[in-house]
Amino acid sequence: MKKLFVVGIGPGDENKMTGEAKEVLARCQVIAGYQVYVDLIKDRFPQKEYIVTGMRQERERCLLALRSADAGKHTAVVCSGDAGVYGMAGILLEMGIQFPEVEIQIVAGVSAVLSGSALLGAAVGHDFAVISLSDLLTPWETIEKRLLGAAMADFVICLYNPASRKRKDYLMRACDLILRYQKPETVCGYVRNIGREGEECHVLSLKELRDFQADMFTTVFVGNSMTRRIGDKMVTPRGYELGEKK
Amino acid sequence: MKKLFVVGIGPGDENKMTGEAKEVLARCQVIAGYQVYVDLIKDRFPQKEYIVTGMRQERERCLLALRSADAGKHTAVVCSGDAGVYGMAGILLEMGIQFPEVEIQIVAGVSAVLSGSALLGAAVGHDFAVISLSDLLTPWETIEKRLLGAAMADFVICLYNPASRKRKDYLMRACDLILRYQKPETVCGYVRNIGREGEECHVLSLKELRDFQADMFTTVFVGNSMTRRIGDKMVTPRGYELGEKK
Repeated sequence: MKKLFVVGIGPGDENKMTGEAKEVLARCQVIAGYQVYVDLIKDRFPQKEYIVTGMRQERERCLLALRSADAGKHTAVVCSGDAGVYGMAGILLEMGIQFPEVEIQIVAGVSAVLSGSALLGAAVGHDFAVISLSDLLTPWETIEKRLLGAAMADFVICLYNPASRKRKDYLMRACDLILRYQKPETVCGYVRNIGREGEECHVLSLKELRDFQADMFTTVFVGNSMTRRIGDKMVTPRGYELGEKK
Repeated sequence: MKKLFVVGIGPGDENKMTGEAKEVLARCQVIAGYQVYVDLIKDRFPQKEYIVTGMRQERERCLLALRSADAGKHTAVVCSGDAGVYGMAGILLEMGIQFPEVEIQIVAGVSAVLSGSALLGAAVGHDFAVISLSDLLTPWETIEKRLLGAAMADFVICLYNPASRKRKDYLMRACDLILRYQKPETVCGYVRNIGREGEECHVLSLKELRDFQADMFTTVFVGNSMTRRIGDKMVTPRGYELGEKK
């Protein structure tokens, strides 16, 4: 059976990878990925054939990986975080139609919404929405609609891709939209370089977050109306009764 | 240093646990958890002291775990899926105020939204919202508001706790709310017993999902307007241009 694995490798630190992800990478012959993610794993899995392409060359990378699998080599495509969440699983399943002999298997990983939440304490302890602020593949109007819908419905909101060199003010614009429904004092947090060198996390108010300059290594969390600060942690209760019961 | 770990053990299958989670459980002396989750790991980590309590005895279990850590025993509280998402991280951080010498560390795990999405293909390939239909700790009006907000904003929606013995028609009610904004043909999916015996997954339409009788082992996914069925998989594209580019 010709096999292609799409593997979420978690935030970067090897021990935040699942056992299944490690096994798949250890077994396969070819590993394909974006340069930065391949660098995270290359040392641990030497003697593999690597397919490395740059950012925005996803389709090319996927095609090379599918061809590799179709040629009979066990192949894995690695994604940071999860394989599905803004990852390669969807595009590979779509392109895989052209390679009917290749069975595609998705291996889930710990996405930044979960690893970041854990660093901050319990940022996503209740219902939450995950939104990417990148408008490369999504019209800004759609992103805006989602920010407003999530804020209106009092979701904890996790923002991926809050900024890039070309999108310096997107986080500010997102906060301004959320501020239509949530208070300036709403407890928020951000994490940088999860599971890598330079890991940091901070808890701050929505008003402060608005003026924070995020970068592409940042993941942002906006609490719901119940989220509170406990020491240096951001904690969203599991329900609306917590703290009242004893 | 007195330590309490809150550990997400993933969906159940040992190899879907992170390396970090395994290490923590191997090292600690005491493991606390809900009976069902403790049963999932007890064989692999014998010779531990176990604190087991039933459902809805969370506060008691947390107190026992905090006291155990405060007594100098390295203690872990296990949660299925992630430690934060509807898990114990928040309540322990909250109750931990009473135990200032105990340092609480959260270990993220693969929550059902990610493991279920992978089984279905790429159910959450783009922005998504996670909503629990349990109204034990959340007023139904809040749940309703979130369902409507998420559907209106065209999120992929993942539903936890879609039904229990007392809440047989909640999934139908949720689908009826989502149907105000999404078409009856919207691609949906459900998974049961992820990573355990009896694992299954199915792709169906929102109209069909409305009449499906979920149980407490089911996790449900409602696609966004771009989600499509590819073979027996549920795939949400990463953006709004996929399939048009070559």
